[in-house]
Formats: sequence, C-alpha cells, structure tokens
Amino acid sequence: MNEFHPPKRILLGPGPSDVDPRVLRALAAPLIGHLDPEFLKAMDDIQQLLRIVFETKNRLTIPISATGSAGMEAGFSNLIEQGDSVVVCVNGVFGERMSDIVKRCGGVLTRLETTWGTGFDMDQLRETLIQTHPKVLAVVHAETSTGVLTPPEKITEVLTDFPETLFLLDCVTSLGGHSVGVDQHCIDFAYSGTQKCLSCPPGLSPITVSERAVAQIRKRQTKVQSWYLDLTMVEKYWGSDRTYHHTAPVSMNYAIREALRLITEEGLPQRWDRHRLNHRALVAGIEAMGLGMLVKPEDRLWTLNAIKVPENVSDATVRSRLLSEFGIEIGGGLGPLKDKIWRVGLMGTSSQQNNVLLLLSALELILIQEGFHANRSAGVEAAAKIYTEA
Amino acid sequence: MNEFHPPKRILLGPGPSDVDPRVLRALAAPLIGHLDPEFLKAMDDIQQLLRIVFETKNRLTIPISATGSAGMEAGFSNLIEQGDSVVVCVNGVFGERMSDIVKRCGGVLTRLETTWGTGFDMDQLRETLIQTHPKVLAVVHAETSTGVLTPPEKITEVLTDFPETLFLLDCVTSLGGHSVGVDQHCIDFAYSGTQKCLSCPPGLSPITVSERAVAQIRKRQTKVQSWYLDLTMVEKYWGSDRTYHHTAPVSMNYAIREALRLITEEGLPQRWDRHRLNHRALVAGIEAMGLGMLVKPEDRLWTLNAIKVPENVSDATVRSRLLSEFGIEIGGGLGPLKDKIWRVGLMGTSSQQNNVLLLLSALELILIQEGFHANRSAGVEAAAKIYTEA
Repeated sequence: MNEFHPPKRILLGPGPSDVDPRVLRALAAPLIGHLDPEFLKAMDDIQQLLRIVFETKNRLTIPISATGSAGMEAGFSNLIEQGDSVVVCVNGVFGERMSDIVKRCGGVLTRLETTWGTGFDMDQLRETLIQTHPKVLAVVHAETSTGVLTPPEKITEVLTDFPETLFLLDCVTSLGGHSVGVDQHCIDFAYSGTQKCLSCPPGLSPITVSERAVAQIRKRQTKVQSWYLDLTMVEKYWGSDRTYHHTAPVSMNYAIREALRLITEEGLPQRWDRHRLNHRALVAGIEAMGLGMLVKPEDRLWTLNAIKVPENVSDATVRSRLLSEFGIEIGGGLGPLKDKIWRVGLMGTSSQQNNVLLLLSALELILIQEGFHANRSAGVEAAAKIYTEA
Repeated sequence: MNEFHPPKRILLGPGPSDVDPRVLRALAAPLIGHLDPEFLKAMDDIQQLLRIVFETKNRLTIPISATGSAGMEAGFSNLIEQGDSVVVCVNGVFGERMSDIVKRCGGVLTRLETTWGTGFDMDQLRETLIQTHPKVLAVVHAETSTGVLTPPEKITEVLTDFPETLFLLDCVTSLGGHSVGVDQHCIDFAYSGTQKCLSCPPGLSPITVSERAVAQIRKRQTKVQSWYLDLTMVEKYWGSDRTYHHTAPVSMNYAIREALRLITEEGLPQRWDRHRLNHRALVAGIEAMGLGMLVKPEDRLWTLNAIKVPENVSDATVRSRLLSEFGIEIGGGLGPLKDKIWRVGLMGTSSQQNNVLLLLSALELILIQEGFHANRSAGVEAAAKIYTEA
C-alpha cells in the first residue's frame, strides 16, 4: 500500500471547505503533551479566539474533541434530563437529527415542521411555545441540507415571552460566514464544526454555553448520559483546574488556533461581507444561466447555496464531471431533495471570487454538453457585474 | 496573538507519543471531501490496516471520530441496554472510568477490584462471573495509570465457561506495542487511541467488533443512547453503503493511514520486540540506579513504566526539571498514586534506545542534584548491557 496522495480539489460542497496553507502547516507541527504548559497556553488562546468568533463573553467556550454532530449531542445531553420538554424546528436533515438525539436523551419532543427549503412562521413558533413551555428550543441557524437561514434575532424576539426556555442554536454552517451574535441574541448553547466557514479540517466542534445554561447543567438531578460529552468534567479540563478528562486532539487544536487567527486578521465583519458578496455573485450567475435557486431570497444562506437541478439533467452526471474534469466538489441533495438540488458551499477559504467564476464557467460548459440550453457566458458576466459594482 | 511554535519535546509520558515526520507530512496534505471517491479508498485502506494491527478478520474495524475514551463509551453504549449486567475489573483510572460509563448507560455494575498496581486473581474473576453471569466482562489490557498488564489469554480461558458473556478489552496503551490478538483471544469489542503505540496524534479511537457483538447490537430493543457513537449508523458510513452520518476527520484519517503503514512496514512482531527490549533496558537502568518499579515483573507493561518516586524527592520538581532542562515529558501518578510514581511511556516512535539512555542520564543528573544517592552511571551502563546482549 503506497503513500496517500490526495488529488487536487476545489471544495465547494457542504464541507469540508478548502483549508489555508497556514492551517495545514500548523497541523504538521511536532506533537507536545496535552498537559504541557505551552499547550495549556494554546488552549487558552483558542478559547479567547472562539469567544471573538461566537461574539460572546461566555466563559465556557471551547472546542469539543469530536466533529460537529458531537457538539449537537453535547448540547442536548447536557441541557435536558428524562422527561424535559424540547421544541425542535425541523426543515431539513439537521432538525431531523436534533429530533432523533432529543429522544435518545429522554426528552419529550415537539416538532415545529415546515417544508424543506422554506423558513419558519414565527406566529406558529409562538403558538407551539405557548402549548409546550419547553425547557429548550432548538433551531438550526444554517440548514446545510437546504441552504435556509433562520435568523436568530427573530427567535430571540419570540423567546422574550418565554424566559425559562433555553435557546439552542446549530451554527455549523454559519459560524465565521454569517454573524451568530451569541450574546446579542441571548443564545444559551451554540455549537459549530471546524470544516465549514472556519476552514479548518473536520474533527472539532466549537461550542459556547451561557452562564444560565451552565447553572442548569450544574443542578441536574442525573448525570449526563455521555461521559465523553459531560460538560461538568470537560469544563474543568479546559478551565483553570486542568483536571485530566480525555486527551485533547493536539494537532487539530494547533489547526483551529491558526484558522481562528486568520479570521481575526481578516476581521469578522469583513469576512461576513466576503461571504455575502460571493453568494450574491453566484446567485446572479446561476439565475442568468437560466437555473433557479431552491430558497426564497430572504431565507437564503450566504454559505450554502441550493441550486435546482434542471429537468432532463442528471444530478449525478454533472457532479461527477465537475469532480473528474475540473476537480470541483459540490454536494447533492439529501432526503426529499435527493437528485433535485446541487449544494454549493462558499465557506471560509472556499468563498472566493475565483471559485465563483470557475464554477459558473465549468457548470455552463457541462450543462450545454448535457443538452441544457444555458445562456452562453451570461452566468460569468452576471457574476462579474456584481464584483465590479461591489 | 502570534503563530504557535510548539517547543521541541521528547514525549515519554502516558501519551501522546512522538509522531514520525511521515505522519506529520500526511496530516498536512490538502483536504478533500469526506465522500470523495479517493477518500473512500483511503477509508478502506485504514480498515484493512487496522485489521492487521488488531490481528482480526472482523469486518467492523474502524476509527471512531473522537479520542480513546469515546471508543470506551462506544463499546458500552452499543453493547449494553438498561438493566444489563456488566462486570468491570478495576485496578486503576481506566477501570474506574469504565464503571462510571457502565452506570451512565444503565448497566447493572459489578466491580472486581484489586489494588492499583497489581494484577487480578483469575479464581476471583471466575467466582464473580458465576455470581453475575454478565452480558459483558470489561478488562483493561494496559492500565495506563499504573503500568499493569492484564493478559487477555488468561481472561479468555476463564470465559470459556461463560459463552454468553461478551469480552470487552481496552487496548489504548497496548495496541501496536503488545500483541492484542483480537481473534485469537475471542475479544468481542476492543478499542484503542491513536496517540499511544500507534504514534499518530490524538483524535481517533480505533475499534473492532466481533460478528456476535454486531449481532447483539443489531437486535437491541432500544436505540443506542449516543447518536454520535451509534454503530448501527457508523458502520454504514464506513461500510459499502457510505450512508452519510457525520463528517470524518479527513486529516486525522490521512495521519492514521500513514501511521499504520509505518507499523506494517516495521512488522508487528518486530515492533512488539522493540517495545519489550526498550522496556527491559529502562527497567534495568532504573533498578541499577537504585530506584524501584511499582509493578511486579510478571504484571508489567512494556509500553508504560511506573517508577516509584524515592522518599525525600519531589515528584513535581523532577518532572518539571526534565521538561525545562531536557525537553523530556514524563507523567506523574493519578489518584492514590499521585506524587508516588513517575509514568514513563515508551510507546511507538518514542520507544527508542536513544530515549532510554537519555532519560536515564537526565534522571540520574537531576536526582543526584536533588540529594538522592543514585549509583553514578550505573543506570546507563545497565541499560547499555541489555542493548549489547540483545
């Protein structure tokens, strides 16, 4: 078996996104112990940088030593106990996943559902909360499976009438691409993944927990069912006690430190603007080519773009040609949207003018060859216009 | 905040161990998607290589996407359901951790205990099994907190009279350093960590599951309480279905593939011999210096060596001087052994003649300065004698 040489890819799928060479170099630094005084300093730096990116002062702001879904599980398994009422807003794969996890944690689940690809009605949400008065309301900020954004400020406004309810937000595909505003929007538990808009390899799940959520966790009647994700222990490992819990993934922590440093160098508002601009250019190009977006303009993420696969065009053929002929990865649809959408991620390092222009060119070329009557060059021209005017 | 430059260390603690430059280079390769056809091939390679290292034909042999303790939790949370009887052999931190996790999973726990630093009595184990007829017997092969080895063949012999009991083995500090022999010893669930004798950075937990354990998991009455660790889903992601579950830590999988390749290049028996030889040289040197080992010769691990801190010598001072003056990390004692032992890991890439000789020299130098009457040069001479005769 030979050395593995990954092919050159441009990662425009639902994640991982492209990783800056500085982050790859950080990954390759020699190991030191996870309790080494120098590593403890790096752990402090990471917490400080994560607070900036989450826009929070929360003390308990750390990377969980597993991927984004473990951050989701950490949220529910710490916040809820057997019989606790939980409302989950479901309009895609990750709302479904939340529902599954809530039940595994013994929560009493109420689902507020809407069609995949559309946003939630806040009056319906209010009605659901009046009926259930849940301990936790769980919302996906950026639904990776559909490209729908649920603005946290709208949720916070509804929640002002339900002060006992904890607000849990999935920011896997938004953190670093859209503003999350944890303190501003009174979010009690937010989690993310490293491989999306933070542009660090997958493997860690940054979380942040409000003081009132920490207080709730501390006064639980029963132990958290997961030892690995039990924040009463994990917080002591990351806090000043440094009590041994597990062994932190040292190299991945080198990487996230450098990825977060890149974000603070760019500046958060500048980074959000970049994501917005590249999204606008992509959408302009896609629509000029004669393709359609799945999501209404006001509900669209900047980081994950769901493009409707035109009739008589094979989803799989186009994606496979993009990969093999251009080295470009994009994602397909999941569940009810299988074969119906392409998911184009413009996240972190991948959110670049060059990638937008290249994708539009490559897609046009393939679509015309596959018999779709794209307006020749219109996609690239429309995108270029957005960049010129910006 | 500046770029992080980890200091140069020689990692002779309980883990992480030193990582070969080839593995660091693999880590730094550009990212590709976790469902990329080329990454799927790498996933297949990793499973094949892990089967070699675990000495098994088990189909379900994969790295869990989190550190070693998550492998432990995966074992119990998949194998046991509410009310199942579990016997845990406890003679250190990791037996204690197992006990904690069993209770969190709803298991009915029976502990077979013995003093930390000593092995188990097989007659007592038989007696415990007769009384409990457990669904699972859990044993730590290599107790990292004390340096005690529990030979799996002894357990297997007792278990021949209890065919319904599943044998779960913690191989975190043994896999790649001692033979584990999963198939030979009829082990139903074994887990390890990457940062010990595999000499890969921490972040993954290789596991292997016997066909009869897989059958048990499939016929569970209740869902596995952890979504992230639910092997009924994880096995489909790693199997031919490739059903999306979570996003595998791509870079860490590059790294483990290369670390496993290094192991197969060296050869498993050669690698075990190397660990044994360096252990013997270290012990000869330690005893010649006038220090003592915690564990009786027949119960000693080759990978983790527990040295008694001599009276009137400060554990913390010696460890801190080793780190600051020589860049050598060793570990201290945990729980009842705090301040009482040093834990010297000779694992994977760190298990080297040069490291043994350097540690003995540095330790002697510090101990003499700290007022301990070490026999001058006797440690290095005794170790050198072992190497010369080998």
